[in-house]
Amino acid sequence: MKDRKKMVPIVLGLLFYLALPVQLQAMDDHLPSWNDGHSKQAIVAFVGAVTEKGGAGYVHPAERIAVFDNDGTLWSEKPAYFQLLFAIDRIKALAPQHPEWKTQQPFKAVLENDIKTLAASGEKGLIELVMASHTGMTTDEFEQIVTDWLATAKHPKFKRPYTELVYQPMLDMLQYLRDNGFKTFIVSGGGIEFMRPFTEKVYGIPPEQVIGSSIKTKFEMRNGRPVLVREPEIFFIDDKAGKPVGIQKFIGRRPIAAFGNSDGDLQMLQWTTAGKGKRFGLIVHHTDSEREWAYDRKSHVGRLSEALDQAQTKGWVVVDMKRDWKVIYPFQRE
Amino acid sequence: MKDRKKMVPIVLGLLFYLALPVQLQAMDDHLPSWNDGHSKQAIVAFVGAVTEKGGAGYVHPAERIAVFDNDGTLWSEKPAYFQLLFAIDRIKALAPQHPEWKTQQPFKAVLENDIKTLAASGEKGLIELVMASHTGMTTDEFEQIVTDWLATAKHPKFKRPYTELVYQPMLDMLQYLRDNGFKTFIVSGGGIEFMRPFTEKVYGIPPEQVIGSSIKTKFEMRNGRPVLVREPEIFFIDDKAGKPVGIQKFIGRRPIAAFGNSDGDLQMLQWTTAGKGKRFGLIVHHTDSEREWAYDRKSHVGRLSEALDQAQTKGWVVVDMKRDWKVIYPFQRE
Repeated sequence: MKDRKKMVPIVLGLLFYLALPVQLQAMDDHLPSWNDGHSKQAIVAFVGAVTEKGGAGYVHPAERIAVFDNDGTLWSEKPAYFQLLFAIDRIKALAPQHPEWKTQQPFKAVLENDIKTLAASGEKGLIELVMASHTGMTTDEFEQIVTDWLATAKHPKFKRPYTELVYQPMLDMLQYLRDNGFKTFIVSGGGIEFMRPFTEKVYGIPPEQVIGSSIKTKFEMRNGRPVLVREPEIFFIDDKAGKPVGIQKFIGRRPIAAFGNSDGDLQMLQWTTAGKGKRFGLIVHHTDSEREWAYDRKSHVGRLSEALDQAQTKGWVVVDMKRDWKVIYPFQRE
Repeated sequence: MKDRKKMVPIVLGLLFYLALPVQLQAMDDHLPSWNDGHSKQAIVAFVGAVTEKGGAGYVHPAERIAVFDNDGTLWSEKPAYFQLLFAIDRIKALAPQHPEWKTQQPFKAVLENDIKTLAASGEKGLIELVMASHTGMTTDEFEQIVTDWLATAKHPKFKRPYTELVYQPMLDMLQYLRDNGFKTFIVSGGGIEFMRPFTEKVYGIPPEQVIGSSIKTKFEMRNGRPVLVREPEIFFIDDKAGKPVGIQKFIGRRPIAAFGNSDGDLQMLQWTTAGKGKRFGLIVHHTDSEREWAYDRKSHVGRLSEALDQAQTKGWVVVDMKRDWKVIYPFQRE
């Protein structure tokens, strides 16, 4: 056995020599959905710097934390947040059990497809819809409800499942970072348990790396079996100044790279890029009215104004979707 | 290059053939600090079942989540929770800036080492001490305070740093599980930011896999730089029925193995072992008055009574520290 042990490093060396060209060939294909240009160069330069052993910018793999907003950064958010469209479908499905909703706002507006009145109900109305559609069941039941909806519901414009409305260039980015030792997290204003049923399959991000807004849950014994019941009370809002708070609470260390698309991501970008050493901030700017949507300073959903101004002074990369991305969605590759 | 590619699987095969005996030899040494007996057999049988490909109990690596309580499960909790001893040291260090504490309880009791009065101040007094010692600074500052304390403070009985008062058999267990594809998490009633500065170094558990109790934090800009300030308000208590809630919030899937030592871990054990498929629950029973401490049903710290009763019917393994563990602390190995 001693001889065998001695041979291990020799064979290992041989293996690496043989495998190296294969490895290099694969590396050529990182970020295949990105056009060459400043954005792609900037991310490749950053990843190169933090992974170069002995380099001035080297970051230990354990510290290679990258955080991604979800709505408008990893998937689309028009005509409205997909979670709101889920809430609307859910209210409609539950309506037979709630005859009072026929005359009660904002439910009446939902049932009558009265978008104007619904929009006028504001944040208060939105919270009422979320509480009515997202709480009262166990966590296991809610996971099943979301899973079923994602499997059947279709986006109004593209007539495809919502999970196909993800950005291929960002899927490339997630994979590229993970291939370089990064741990990728979602940090979204959206509901944590609305995202978890699909993030592993769609983004390769496991549930324990998803941070989001949440309601309170309560432990109970039902028929001798423990359950967690979703209560109609807000626990944590993971948006704006809540994002760095959520990052510290869930991850416990400062990310070195942050990816967002709206003013809701401003504080996350500030917190991430204010750390010591090499840091990277990126904003997805929605500029493609043909393949996706074009919006920024005046949009109600995904408003991008202050973060766009600060990007200049802070050196954050602003991605021009129309110019920088070869394709938007995976189904457009064919 | 084509020939090189063809050779890769051949060399890989050769490598595994050569490395196999080395690997097997290492496997013989899992759980070296555990005496042979029921406890060790039970954990080895469980790990064998969930990792056996094609077996009835096989669990995909992504689902191999194991959760560990900290106080009394991974390190000692006598004569008091180490975090309380930290709070006491901190109150003493801050006393010169707070002359009012000389006459104000529970601070007066701390400064006069009046344990009786301190104990009588109950949970209310404890929270006052924690708020006074754990809040008001930034998260970065608090991390430094904890790190400095851990580097200098000594346990009153063993005269060693608190981080040496960890259980060697549980360090074996953490490593053994990770070697078998498990992801190990801490789920503690203790403060999340009190634990994170040492868990990676001491337990091999990174900060993002630590769940605990926490206070609120607030994002602020100070001199143009973002900080997170620790506020004197409770955010989440990760104890008893709060443990399954914390697990769902942070991990988002049900663990398949849970390790605890007190009634504070009862609901975590119930939640974990009520899931489908192979499950494992373990309670560390403090039975060794010579090498550590012996306590259970009547102890104020780490009371173990209801969980001990339920262990029988639920099939949870109850570790007898005196009988099952060859050594308690790493420094006793020499």
